[in-house]
Amino acid sequence: MLRFALIGAGRIGAVHGASIAAHPGASLALVADPDLEAAGRLASRFGAHATADVTDVYTAGDVDAVIVGSPTPLHVEHLTAAVAAGKAVLVEKPVDLDIARVDACIAAVGQDARRVMVGFNRRFDPAFAEVRARSGEVGPVEQVTIISRDPAPPPAQYVASSGGLFRDMAIHDLDMARFLVGEIASVHAVGQRVGTVPEPDVDGAVTTLVAESGAVVTIVNSRHCATGYDQRLEVFGALGSLEVGNVRATTVRHHGATTSAATGPYLDFFLERCATAYARELDHFVTAITAGEAPSPTLADGRAALELADAATLSAATGETVRLRSSAPMEKETV
Amino acid sequence: MLRFALIGAGRIGAVHGASIAAHPGASLALVADPDLEAAGRLASRFGAHATADVTDVYTAGDVDAVIVGSPTPLHVEHLTAAVAAGKAVLVEKPVDLDIARVDACIAAVGQDARRVMVGFNRRFDPAFAEVRARSGEVGPVEQVTIISRDPAPPPAQYVASSGGLFRDMAIHDLDMARFLVGEIASVHAVGQRVGTVPEPDVDGAVTTLVAESGAVVTIVNSRHCATGYDQRLEVFGALGSLEVGNVRATTVRHHGATTSAATGPYLDFFLERCATAYARELDHFVTAITAGEAPSPTLADGRAALELADAATLSAATGETVRLRSSAPMEKETV
Amino acid sequence: MLRFALIGAGRIGAVHGASIAAHPGASLALVADPDLEAAGRLASRFGAHATADVTDVYTAGDVDAVIVGSPTPLHVEHLTAAVAAGKAVLVEKPVDLDIARVDACIAAVGQDARRVMVGFNRRFDPAFAEVRARSGEVGPVEQVTIISRDPAPPPAQYVASSGGLFRDMAIHDLDMARFLVGEIASVHAVGQRVGTVPEPDVDGAVTTLVAESGAVVTIVNSRHCATGYDQRLEVFGALGSLEVGNVRATTVRHHGATTSAATGPYLDFFLERCATAYARELDHFVTAITAGEAPSPTLADGRAALELADAATLSAATGETVRLRSSAPMEKETV
Amino acid sequence: MLRFALIGAGRIGAVHGASIAAHPGASLALVADPDLEAAGRLASRFGAHATADVTDVYTAGDVDAVIVGSPTPLHVEHLTAAVAAGKAVLVEKPVDLDIARVDACIAAVGQDARRVMVGFNRRFDPAFAEVRARSGEVGPVEQVTIISRDPAPPPAQYVASSGGLFRDMAIHDLDMARFLVGEIASVHAVGQRVGTVPEPDVDGAVTTLVAESGAVVTIVNSRHCATGYDQRLEVFGALGSLEVGNVRATTVRHHGATTSAATGPYLDFFLERCATAYARELDHFVTAITAGEAPSPTLADGRAALELADAATLSAATGETVRLRSSAPMEKETV
Repeated sequence: MLRFALIGAGRIGAVHGASIAAHPGASLALVADPDLEAAGRLASRFGAHATADVTDVYTAGDVDAVIVGSPTPLHVEHLTAAVAAGKAVLVEKPVDLDIARVDACIAAVGQDARRVMVGFNRRFDPAFAEVRARSGEVGPVEQVTIISRDPAPPPAQYVASSGGLFRDMAIHDLDMARFLVGEIASVHAVGQRVGTVPEPDVDGAVTTLVAESGAVVTIVNSRHCATGYDQRLEVFGALGSLEVGNVRATTVRHHGATTSAATGPYLDFFLERCATAYARELDHFVTAITAGEAPSPTLADGRAALELADAATLSAATGETVRLRSSAPMEKETV
Repeated sequence: MLRFALIGAGRIGAVHGASIAAHPGASLALVADPDLEAAGRLASRFGAHATADVTDVYTAGDVDAVIVGSPTPLHVEHLTAAVAAGKAVLVEKPVDLDIARVDACIAAVGQDARRVMVGFNRRFDPAFAEVRARSGEVGPVEQVTIISRDPAPPPAQYVASSGGLFRDMAIHDLDMARFLVGEIASVHAVGQRVGTVPEPDVDGAVTTLVAESGAVVTIVNSRHCATGYDQRLEVFGALGSLEVGNVRATTVRHHGATTSAATGPYLDFFLERCATAYARELDHFVTAITAGEAPSPTLADGRAALELADAATLSAATGETVRLRSSAPMEKETV
Repeated sequence: MLRFALIGAGRIGAVHGASIAAHPGASLALVADPDLEAAGRLASRFGAHATADVTDVYTAGDVDAVIVGSPTPLHVEHLTAAVAAGKAVLVEKPVDLDIARVDACIAAVGQDARRVMVGFNRRFDPAFAEVRARSGEVGPVEQVTIISRDPAPPPAQYVASSGGLFRDMAIHDLDMARFLVGEIASVHAVGQRVGTVPEPDVDGAVTTLVAESGAVVTIVNSRHCATGYDQRLEVFGALGSLEVGNVRATTVRHHGATTSAATGPYLDFFLERCATAYARELDHFVTAITAGEAPSPTLADGRAALELADAATLSAATGETVRLRSSAPMEKETV
Repeated sequence: MLRFALIGAGRIGAVHGASIAAHPGASLALVADPDLEAAGRLASRFGAHATADVTDVYTAGDVDAVIVGSPTPLHVEHLTAAVAAGKAVLVEKPVDLDIARVDACIAAVGQDARRVMVGFNRRFDPAFAEVRARSGEVGPVEQVTIISRDPAPPPAQYVASSGGLFRDMAIHDLDMARFLVGEIASVHAVGQRVGTVPEPDVDGAVTTLVAESGAVVTIVNSRHCATGYDQRLEVFGALGSLEVGNVRATTVRHHGATTSAATGPYLDFFLERCATAYARELDHFVTAITAGEAPSPTLADGRAALELADAATLSAATGETVRLRSSAPMEKETV
């Protein structure tokens, strides 16, 4: 039984709390949040204790593992302290918006990185995971096309400190690219402004990645989509292709006088679409940590996605293709 | 080169005329219709002669084959005379509405039935034909479900002399049942009245057929369908199923705020959906006759479908299941 | 907080136990099963007590509501005793296989039927419920087509006492027919034997129902389906149709050299497909009982479905259409 | 009645010959090809004369319009001569591979460009045309995604003189981009080599176009696709999206033990998929010329697509984004 503490009692904390409660090999012991009332509400739902003092997490004797769901600028501090206290850590992405701080974190954590996992939950989406598992059916992957659109833009204040579209949104798709085709050799991006978020951020983008394998990955992003959370992906090779479509609430189709086969809109936001992914992500973490194995995606994966987001941000600003320095000698993800 | 005469210059005559013109092994020589102007219009489009006197068809030296597209009550007369004159004949369905007259026709034609084909064009629809050709993939057929709806009811005057829904519309589906599972042992039907056609005809029906093989066939009919010409079919066996869906004008799908994946309505009427089927039907007839082989579906198939329509009509009136006498020793279709 | 006892610690008991645990307004207090070990295993998963003596359920002071998941022949006894003890009851379908016993049960329960709900879980499937809620979009319902196939036949010993396909399997579809078009005026059924279950039961059937409204409902059943749990439905009227398709584990589609758009098989059995339905069913029961309102489907709905199953069984044996006596003056379902 | 001459008796000539024969307002008078036997074979199928001397086309009194289907290097010569002889001209794309020669051609033709149409047949595909016609339904177009793959690479000798993937294949998609979002401001392209065609050509590419309107267009190309001719497109805006899917020979879907909903592969090559498009293209040309109006796409459209292909070729070689000079003051297409 892996005993968890949650740092952060917000929306994502509640999702992880429910996953822990439903997992036969996990239990929730502690919820830490400066907003003690929020921490208490969440803790009571799952029979855990609450604290406003995050250091209680590091010293708690009944806590084996920590989920870091605090605001992004605090991720590195909380992650480093929890690891130093001997805990296993599942940290929400991004590790940090500043790649220098991520590098410092990786250096500080050292070999203990084996106890750290970065929450790229989309790798655990049943459909995306199925495509990776079956990708051999298409032969060596030649082309990947990802369409990834949010239903609606985030609040202006979020965008102000999010690092921009490539770091707050496309980063999931950049990680998915590495998940499917491995290391990336060059990045080109185009950003577009439609006006749904304040300048200088963009609300649409097309990013083209060339992998070291020769595969080309295209990512089309938008901050808004009237039909819902638009998450599609296609992997293409000489033998065929595998395609992930959108998810609807039901299979009902309407046939009327002017249209046929009309289904409902896509599920509306990532917590709905990703509920299963979060539960599977937690299960992977619990299973790996319990078995003494390193979970994945790793801190190195977290750094690599941020490096791609930085490159895309630069390319969108300059119009130039950014060639990545040969990959640093870090462990690669192995899911 | 098979030289054709058309009896009947109506809508179906025009379809056959175009198929003949497009066929490299066929040519149109003569169009006969009491309405000489209509005959002339059609003939001139395809470089043929026109006549108001149907007997010209039988005596024409440059006519090898005749397509009988006259009103149903005249089918037997025109078919019998053309066969007697040595012509090959493709007769529109139904052969006649009175099974006694069909039996007399079969007796009169005798061995020359080898030169006669009945126009159950739906057997030549590429999708339905594919299902039959691949039906072994599902194992022995256990269940067939046919949904067959017209976009709109026929004119009242047509219904008055059509023999009713089972003989004028379901007959295509009854033939399809035999095409897919062979001879039928019993028939049960329920008719329903919605009010789109004059009494005593029905505008909806569900017919259940038990085949000699043990397969059960369900046919759901309606005389109206807001979304267009609704023609679906499913063949089910122990290994799986094969399904025919509806046809749209294009593959365009619309995704908006309240619905997704909405396509256009189904193609609107049988001439659109069946254009390919008519061309393939003609090709089969031309190929068989040219090779001296018997085309199919045969006169016996035409009789069998009418027998099923009669049984369904009776069952709908009485609520009883109609057991068919053991099939007469007639040749079975061999497409 | 509605406190539950479960009678029966089998598969369905476990499903309900999990639904209760996940429901914020429900808790599980007691599990009763003659197999005390099974009861204990289930109870311990959800923090409840266990007993081998079903009478403990009736006398327990901390039990407000009882879920009757015992074998069918015990349903009436357990239901009647629990109601007499003042409990609310959710009884699995069928209430009983003998309509005379059901009538006696209804008489015994009397006005307390307001506290009894019959577990036709399929009414709570999100897709089927959506179709009913939106059925006005098609105009007055004219035709309903239900295709309902199990992945594999039940064990021979189950079939021996199940009452046969119409009572153990089609009864869900017969209830769905009433759910969608109201009371039924006549029933015709055809059974077919493929050999997957022992005689005299059938393993396939087509049932045709004519509703008092004039709507015609067709139900196609099979006890086996290679592709999984095949549950489709279509409601058709003058303005269009609404269709429920099958559910797959993911949206992944494969495109290869010989086929395209191939998805995975349907979800494999009813517990997977129906997980949401069971949770929604429980929620309706908890909400209604907590509010002092009568839940639905009612005992009368349970009786009506059994009456249709009896009629279908008779029709399949005789080939005759069974006309139902005018409906008894029982309350109608009102979901 | 518009009387046609065909220059070129190859595959595309045969397609146009059939379209002319089927068109009520067109007739075929003459086929010119240095291979007189090929010209004769084609001419005799449609009742036309044949010649090995292309100058007969210009002097023929019974020829109003010329379809230039000769090898690309001869397009400009044949087009210019035919226009000078007073004929209307439908020229296959590309006009030429050298933009300087195209400019010279445009200058030579002058105002007679009103009688010239360039054969971007894909604009006349019913689905693509429907998307353009309905594009207002999505609001101002923000993003267009085009996936365009050939079933198999062309012969090596074709590739040697084709100008490369961007000029021989992507040019259709580049024209489609302009068709959907208007003039293009910048081009970025990535080419990839998989080894299906000889160097230095590429067999895959991703091209990103930024339109003057701010819309971003992504084009994913491959020279091979196991599943057939893969032609999809999606137009996205604030209100929703419109999507064009692939076309199959029939609607048959197979459901088996391991997969469900499997359809056949996509139609295999462009002549199949585009048969309707060619007929509609010819109809537009006949209608416009007969009415004395300028057909579209124009010579200027042909030049613009080549300019984009040149830019993409350059970008793929350098990795740099190519900014286009502000559009020349040529007429824009107006279909």
